[in-house]
Amino acid sequence: MQMSSANQRTSTGIMSRGLMKLKAMPKALKEKVINTYRTTKEIGQDDPRRVIHALKVGITLTLVSLFYYYQPLYDSFGLSAMWAVMTVVVVFEYSVGATLGKGLNRGLATLLAGALGVGTHYLADLSGQTIEPILLSFFVFLQAAIATFMRFFPEIKARYDYGLLIFILTFSLISVSGFREDEIIEMAHRRLFTIFIGGSACVMISIFVCPVWAGEELHSLISLNLESLANFLQAFEEEYFRTSKEGDCKDDKTALLEGYKNVLNSKSTEESLANFARWEPGHGRFQFRHPWDKYLEVGTLTRQCAYRMEALNAQLNSNLQASPEIKSIIQEACSAMSLESAKALKELGVALSTMKKPCFADTHISNSKSAAKSLNSLLKSSLWKETDLLSVLPAATVASLLSDIVACTEEIAEAVNELPSLMEFETVETAKPPNRTQSTPHGDNNPHVVILVEDSTPANSPESKSASDQHNTNRV
Amino acid sequence: MQMSSANQRTSTGIMSRGLMKLKAMPKALKEKVINTYRTTKEIGQDDPRRVIHALKVGITLTLVSLFYYYQPLYDSFGLSAMWAVMTVVVVFEYSVGATLGKGLNRGLATLLAGALGVGTHYLADLSGQTIEPILLSFFVFLQAAIATFMRFFPEIKARYDYGLLIFILTFSLISVSGFREDEIIEMAHRRLFTIFIGGSACVMISIFVCPVWAGEELHSLISLNLESLANFLQAFEEEYFRTSKEGDCKDDKTALLEGYKNVLNSKSTEESLANFARWEPGHGRFQFRHPWDKYLEVGTLTRQCAYRMEALNAQLNSNLQASPEIKSIIQEACSAMSLESAKALKELGVALSTMKKPCFADTHISNSKSAAKSLNSLLKSSLWKETDLLSVLPAATVASLLSDIVACTEEIAEAVNELPSLMEFETVETAKPPNRTQSTPHGDNNPHVVILVEDSTPANSPESKSASDQHNTNRV
Repeated sequence: MQMSSANQRTSTGIMSRGLMKLKAMPKALKEKVINTYRTTKEIGQDDPRRVIHALKVGITLTLVSLFYYYQPLYDSFGLSAMWAVMTVVVVFEYSVGATLGKGLNRGLATLLAGALGVGTHYLADLSGQTIEPILLSFFVFLQAAIATFMRFFPEIKARYDYGLLIFILTFSLISVSGFREDEIIEMAHRRLFTIFIGGSACVMISIFVCPVWAGEELHSLISLNLESLANFLQAFEEEYFRTSKEGDCKDDKTALLEGYKNVLNSKSTEESLANFARWEPGHGRFQFRHPWDKYLEVGTLTRQCAYRMEALNAQLNSNLQASPEIKSIIQEACSAMSLESAKALKELGVALSTMKKPCFADTHISNSKSAAKSLNSLLKSSLWKETDLLSVLPAATVASLLSDIVACTEEIAEAVNELPSLMEFETVETAKPPNRTQSTPHGDNNPHVVILVEDSTPANSPESKSASDQHNTNRV
Repeated sequence: MQMSSANQRTSTGIMSRGLMKLKAMPKALKEKVINTYRTTKEIGQDDPRRVIHALKVGITLTLVSLFYYYQPLYDSFGLSAMWAVMTVVVVFEYSVGATLGKGLNRGLATLLAGALGVGTHYLADLSGQTIEPILLSFFVFLQAAIATFMRFFPEIKARYDYGLLIFILTFSLISVSGFREDEIIEMAHRRLFTIFIGGSACVMISIFVCPVWAGEELHSLISLNLESLANFLQAFEEEYFRTSKEGDCKDDKTALLEGYKNVLNSKSTEESLANFARWEPGHGRFQFRHPWDKYLEVGTLTRQCAYRMEALNAQLNSNLQASPEIKSIIQEACSAMSLESAKALKELGVALSTMKKPCFADTHISNSKSAAKSLNSLLKSSLWKETDLLSVLPAATVASLLSDIVACTEEIAEAVNELPSLMEFETVETAKPPNRTQSTPHGDNNPHVVILVEDSTPANSPESKSASDQHNTNRV
């Protein structure tokens, strides 16, 4: 009796919990819908080209499916039209370079594997009905194993991975189905032609309707990364040396201080963008075979600078802080070092994004270097005899890291000046010399430039804005 | 006359250059063949599992192509057998997790899109021959646009990207070819079944023949990264404080000093491995739904430590070097800090790779912390009154960065101890306490442990060796 009542209690408990869950469901569902809606809106607003990309894919697919609906087209291709649809789905990528790369890989691999597959088919055909499947199996095994292993080669992996996949696919399909079908050449021909049509539809739409060039993305990413570093240095100077005013847009400052963190992990994004960009024809101010590797070099130097900033940022949050007195001694030199480096980086970033040779970057760099020199003589002076080394240590570390950053900035400037896209550019003649009191009307709706209005160069050019989410370029 | 002789000269020049090139060709070709052979051998020897993977793909493909050769099988599936071959080619990946993820994505997406496609087909069928293609086109456009946009969502991108691709593909193919074919359910059914067979063949072979588990790869990568950091610290200590003996395996030392550089950019590799690992069933000492995120946390802390090492490494190559006298003052404390941290990291790495709770990591960490404390009191002392701050700066920076690294090591140790795979583990009871004079017979053929034989824990366990090329896990 007791047990059954316990059972009853348990089952009532389960039921009431179930009821509660059921009651809570509409609310949970509503929240989920609202969240999804919000994410969708954010992703679309972050980069409206994503919405356009989705529409482009839909349109291309609909166009290609005309092969089925329109009788004369269907009469000549029949079921092979399926391959055009498949090609569109798998080849159409976010950037032109990725689409072109996949399209060319698919086309060439199909051509090559088709020819080899037909050859294999005839070879196996000669050997008689019994041995034919054995020979075919052997060839399929051999090419699959070799091509799969080749996909481990780093250079091949970077550019021809998809081509090898399609090679295995086509060779296997052609040589295997040749066992059943006699009109194998007809089949290979129809398939190649429909793949060609699907691939060219993708490439055309991708190039001519609101194109997203991987090269330009890489270009903007590198430029944006330089600006992130500049923002960090300016925010760091403010945070470390000045008493921050409360109520002063705290979130913006955190964003500026943490912007460099995206730079730390940008290597894989940069490399894949450069790989895609290599497929792209000349566009805008870039030629075909633009030396994208140079951009990767700038990227590597940028990251090296960012690693120093990570160490500097740790100093900002460290338990061991220099006293205000000690800070005030090094303030002038260190402020000049970080602000001048920041200006140089900023101008290099703007120069990249507007593709105009930087005018004053060299001036800023020599300013920062002379600030570093005066810091050195300051450190040599007898000012420090009174204090023990431990209390100077944090300030000394900051000074040393800033010196490193000044050196990094100089290296970055050299690499940027060697970029071929800048080498051909005219110098901006209308630009005014750096003027710390001047303000610019841009930057109103861009939190990234709020404290940078001191700088004379316009910070939010359309190019730099178009790359506003470097994380997502990974998605192309 | 002059012109024609000039022409003649030019053409002779072209011909002789052509001849030279032709003569040089066999040599160039020979070199290329030799180079390719060498690369192939290296890639195979680096990780023999790659060769096995290639053979596995070949065998699976050959097995699945039996559908064509064996008459009874062909009678029931016909041309749909093609889908089994296609599935094997595109689904079979290097690691079990990646294969499972793709297989499940493909299967579920085909099922869902097939059902929706058939539904759409019947809906459009009701509307009559004229409106049907318009309605079908509209549906194809709509689903392609929505699904393509959904691929931009970060969470969906990480796990279901391939599923969405297959969804677009299947929905388009089914609803479009439904316009021409009447036995659409029959077709969808056959296709689903062959995809199921192809997918399960991949998953079976991938799991049961020499499996490569993404989870284990991640586990070894994290452990190897910890060891790289430890190696750097030991090599740094040697390089910075001791007079290096000439002829002392220089290459090995460079390898040890630069090992941490792989850690700097390991984020994307770790994340993709964790994504794959989430698909894997329980294996070895890992359960299904093992909290792989915890490993990513350790990875993040490891990278943060590596950023400090980058700054420390810059000090090693800096123009401004501390004098031997100054170095000798801080040597004892700094050596202890780096060596004890190195031992702690080393032991944490070994603990991860052998999955045994580290015994002495805490001891090493408290040793390094007390060394940091004695460094602090050394810095406070009056030893420094005589010297100017500039000449102390390099040493002070090294000291400060080492203090940061000691703090990082402690954080890493905490994160590693929280790893669920370690929480359940028994403590090694047979381990001996740290003994600096003891030597181990391992490490003979492994350059990574040459200078680490002071440590009592065996350094080259099979697990740590199996992950010897973390670069390449990117390729899974």
